[in-house]
Amino acid sequence: MRIIRKAAEFECNNGKVRGLVATMGALHEGHLTLIREAKMLCDEVVVSIFVNPLQFGPGEDFARYPRRESEDVALVESAGASVVFAPSVEDFVGLPVTFIQARGVSEHYEGAHRPGHFEGVATIVAKLFNAVRPQHAFFGLKDRQQCAVIGAMVRDLNFPVGLHFVSTVRDADGLAMSSRNAYLSPAERALAPLLFKTLKQAAASISESQSSSTAVTEILSGAAISLAKAGFEVDYLDLVDPLRFEPVINAMSDTVIVVAAKLGRTRLIDNVDIPKQ
Amino acid sequence: MRIIRKAAEFECNNGKVRGLVATMGALHEGHLTLIREAKMLCDEVVVSIFVNPLQFGPGEDFARYPRRESEDVALVESAGASVVFAPSVEDFVGLPVTFIQARGVSEHYEGAHRPGHFEGVATIVAKLFNAVRPQHAFFGLKDRQQCAVIGAMVRDLNFPVGLHFVSTVRDADGLAMSSRNAYLSPAERALAPLLFKTLKQAAASISESQSSSTAVTEILSGAAISLAKAGFEVDYLDLVDPLRFEPVINAMSDTVIVVAAKLGRTRLIDNVDIPKQ
Repeated sequence: MRIIRKAAEFECNNGKVRGLVATMGALHEGHLTLIREAKMLCDEVVVSIFVNPLQFGPGEDFARYPRRESEDVALVESAGASVVFAPSVEDFVGLPVTFIQARGVSEHYEGAHRPGHFEGVATIVAKLFNAVRPQHAFFGLKDRQQCAVIGAMVRDLNFPVGLHFVSTVRDADGLAMSSRNAYLSPAERALAPLLFKTLKQAAASISESQSSSTAVTEILSGAAISLAKAGFEVDYLDLVDPLRFEPVINAMSDTVIVVAAKLGRTRLIDNVDIPKQ
Repeated sequence: MRIIRKAAEFECNNGKVRGLVATMGALHEGHLTLIREAKMLCDEVVVSIFVNPLQFGPGEDFARYPRRESEDVALVESAGASVVFAPSVEDFVGLPVTFIQARGVSEHYEGAHRPGHFEGVATIVAKLFNAVRPQHAFFGLKDRQQCAVIGAMVRDLNFPVGLHFVSTVRDADGLAMSSRNAYLSPAERALAPLLFKTLKQAAASISESQSSSTAVTEILSGAAISLAKAGFEVDYLDLVDPLRFEPVINAMSDTVIVVAAKLGRTRLIDNVDIPKQ
């Protein structure tokens, strides 16, 4: 296992196929699944571990975000990656003036609730692509809007990187794995699976609604109300186009229900696909 | 001479050192000098010819910008490059949502007079870097602020590209070569060299002023007034830090006088270095 601290240490991938799994550390089974997917396609898998200050807003959890590099490095090794890229903020970010904006796709939902978040994500992912120079990069579909933003960036800026979006890994009770789940109290953790359960039920109801826009609106607001009654503070719960991340009323193609809700101090996000009827 | 129309046609530069000279066509000796510089360092020189719509504002000269591809291709070949990349706007730009902003460095001077210009430049240069994947790229110092913006972008986004900024090539009478010089009427062309002459005189006076801020201010405003009296409409004439592109009063390091001025409908820019005393 090689640990790289400075971007300049990366050599060209002479003939080898290189994959990148970009993480903020505090690795869980979701990240390890990304690494294993990358291993199947690539000769060399680089896992970046970097808590990116650019994607946290003021008052968010940058300072308390879990950091445990030695455990993470052991997990990365066990999953079969050969390189960890773990730079310091000072070395890798410095005092930048250059930022990447993906308009439209980053404006609603997470973009509206976390101003600057996707600019920070897109900028750091571009930096990682340029520093690591992977042919393939792997991201989890739990961060569904992030996948859409990175997809737009790669397409619009011609990054020579193949993107692979990997299904969300869940605990046995359905809760989407997230490094932030560690913030949940035992009572909150017991309640948290209701988020996915509610989305699944809403998705099933929408599938059965034959795309009546009145029915869809009622199903979505019903789901949000039942989460609120159970103790969630719902930021949004909506049916969206998974590429443009705009609201959908009459679905002409695949759609996704997306949700963000707080349980106490912990903000959870999740999403469920609704295939076109 | 190979002409590439689609970004996807570029192969990896297997072991070869690839250089990029990004142009909007209407090539002149300044561009050819960039190509020759590139040839000295690179095995394979790619010249992009693309009138980039993203860097023109409403009411600017996008539609009438000179386009003469077959002459340009012959000039590129004569200067020793082996590949022309000349995509269509539809193929290469499409309907993008992703843009690159270099804050600070792109805000004043050209950035203030041409809103959105540097966002368009940075975005298209990033696309060219990702599509062509050169190890080296060559830009002319006539577009001095553009060099600063691209320098900031490459540094901040970790583009694996070595930048080479090449001295301005001038006609015998001192006028900086520019594709836009073709717009000048004979009378305007006769007057145009006064721009560089005035900058050189101001630079010499500032060098002799021992950095007195009062003297610098007077020299700069005197130069702007003499250009205005001669018939130029001066957008700006100022002493700047060539990396940050902010005004400088007490020079602590190298500075540059930058100017933009219109002669009739034609907008000219130029700049002259003032080494630190």
